[in-house]
Amino acid sequence: MPVGTHGVVRGISMDEVAAAGGQMVLANAYHLYLRPGDMMVRALGGLHAFTRWNGPMLTDSGGFQVFSLSKLRTVSEDGVEFQSHIDGSTHQYTPESVMRIERNLGADVMMQLDELIQGRSDISAARSAMERSLRWLQRCKVEFDRISHEGRAPIPDFTVPADAPALACDDAAPEQALFPIVQGGTHATLRKASMTGILESGDWAGVAIGGLSVGETKSDTYAMLEVCDPILPRNVPRYLMGVGFPDDLVEGVQRGIDLFDCVAPTRMGRDGTAFTPDGKMQIRQSSYRTDRRPLVEGCDCPCCTHYDRAYLRHLFVSEEMLGKRLLALHNVSFLIGVMTSAREALRGGTFDSWSGAWLARYRGGE
Amino acid sequence: MPVGTHGVVRGISMDEVAAAGGQMVLANAYHLYLRPGDMMVRALGGLHAFTRWNGPMLTDSGGFQVFSLSKLRTVSEDGVEFQSHIDGSTHQYTPESVMRIERNLGADVMMQLDELIQGRSDISAARSAMERSLRWLQRCKVEFDRISHEGRAPIPDFTVPADAPALACDDAAPEQALFPIVQGGTHATLRKASMTGILESGDWAGVAIGGLSVGETKSDTYAMLEVCDPILPRNVPRYLMGVGFPDDLVEGVQRGIDLFDCVAPTRMGRDGTAFTPDGKMQIRQSSYRTDRRPLVEGCDCPCCTHYDRAYLRHLFVSEEMLGKRLLALHNVSFLIGVMTSAREALRGGTFDSWSGAWLARYRGGE
Repeated sequence: MPVGTHGVVRGISMDEVAAAGGQMVLANAYHLYLRPGDMMVRALGGLHAFTRWNGPMLTDSGGFQVFSLSKLRTVSEDGVEFQSHIDGSTHQYTPESVMRIERNLGADVMMQLDELIQGRSDISAARSAMERSLRWLQRCKVEFDRISHEGRAPIPDFTVPADAPALACDDAAPEQALFPIVQGGTHATLRKASMTGILESGDWAGVAIGGLSVGETKSDTYAMLEVCDPILPRNVPRYLMGVGFPDDLVEGVQRGIDLFDCVAPTRMGRDGTAFTPDGKMQIRQSSYRTDRRPLVEGCDCPCCTHYDRAYLRHLFVSEEMLGKRLLALHNVSFLIGVMTSAREALRGGTFDSWSGAWLARYRGGE
Repeated sequence: MPVGTHGVVRGISMDEVAAAGGQMVLANAYHLYLRPGDMMVRALGGLHAFTRWNGPMLTDSGGFQVFSLSKLRTVSEDGVEFQSHIDGSTHQYTPESVMRIERNLGADVMMQLDELIQGRSDISAARSAMERSLRWLQRCKVEFDRISHEGRAPIPDFTVPADAPALACDDAAPEQALFPIVQGGTHATLRKASMTGILESGDWAGVAIGGLSVGETKSDTYAMLEVCDPILPRNVPRYLMGVGFPDDLVEGVQRGIDLFDCVAPTRMGRDGTAFTPDGKMQIRQSSYRTDRRPLVEGCDCPCCTHYDRAYLRHLFVSEEMLGKRLLALHNVSFLIGVMTSAREALRGGTFDSWSGAWLARYRGGE
């Protein structure tokens, strides 16, 4: 899932995401709650209408942003109080309020509120956060079930210019799904306990694995995925949150993951770094000054079919926004292409040989 | 002509410029000479191949940028010595060197080097610069004729990576045209003398009017255009340099101008200001928070057919690059639309009534 933090995949249009083969987009409840506000998004027709993304969408609960962006936060059993990174104003997230926010936003998949810890936390901190996340999941589910059946809250009375057309707002309850999040740090026993708690408490349309890719080693990440793989149900999608780079996707799929999200493709692209089958390349390098080849030969994205490396380098050296836009689009297209190839290899029964060759080539070039 | 200073119309792709109906693009010899270098552009196939613009292109000589951007400059009869605004390195522009630079760049229209002065300079300073610009025009023409017949200078020996494909470079002389620039500040006698000098010295494929829109009043600008209109030949295009805003275009066409260039549409767009038939609008205004109408109703640009004001405002408030890109594209499309309407009105013999109504509506909304 390309990440559209503010309801936009940074630098590229939803049409371009769709043309690149993107099937699902993530948006961020924390950012949209603060700006323009979840009730505002709802009044503007919900996230799909607001952002012009016609496919499936998922909203992250905002828990991760509260822990990573806000300067002051206080976590209690009730929820988390935090200060906005924009204006310092104080806000309260509870499992219940997050469900209402995500319902207002109207994405197809809502994530539970969970408690996050550092990647290398000791087992007692990890257990405490995992257990609280399970209790918060129960509260999320109760509120989710309540508001799914109750219909939506009334639309607030926005001050609308006299000559603006009436706001359309569909009050029929949309089909939304709630995903639980497996926590437990890098401790296999805690991950197992988290999954037991989750699977005993409901039939879920999908399950996420959180708290990885937050500072722990790659081998710890893979070990945790291997703990989860045999336990999680095989008939619902498994979503590895906040991951990742091209090789992370291949390693994740190898361990049973279906869905990923990461800001890396757009963030790296803005910085002039492109994903290629031979590892990352930094287009500002002077060796590309006279290089008339496409960024990635054989890539069918608009960046690679229209432009050469010499011009793309020139755009970055000249600080032209088109460069950021084109490399972001290439990187998003590249990750979608990796997943497409992985699916084909899985269907064809050739995943192991495909992934081995793919990883060897990618890492050989790094 | 949308302005592609560095060989890119800021924020938007050449495909988008073409789809908006753009017919000709301007690039800037000063910027491209400094980065990536005119010989580099030539080695990369020339400006059209480099930028992927398949239509006509014009290069400004760089004289204006030398006068406006470089910190230190010394003007003599020979030319102008200046320091790069990028790295402070010292460079020399002469009428002859500018011709060679523009020939290397390979645009369809090359502009002469001229001497610029402030918009409200006194008559003796304006006369001196105008007369020097005429002498520089003669030198430009001699060099232009020489290099047009001689073919291009040899390609420098760039250090090319061993595995890069061979650089293609067409050494056949391309069809290029040289445009002279009418100078003379806001003094009718000087403008007339400039035109006399220009028209006596050659058959030109087009004539530019420079040194306007640089601080003088609008009525002074219009007065100078009215001095030029009856004197300039009617069978070649007249290009008013560095102009302008939507109403400036209509006022210019009314006074016989065919071609314009200005960074306003992209610069204003990046700042959140959109051109509309009712004047400029600033999309960040809070009144657009809940406004689901397109930026300009009836506009068929991708920004207006795909997005509403509430979302565009959200993109600017959230500092999302897509907003800058969409408003730049809208503004470029809008100016192209103004020129299309002006052409239709001229052909239909209704220009006076069309322009009167257009200006009244535009200025009524400002």
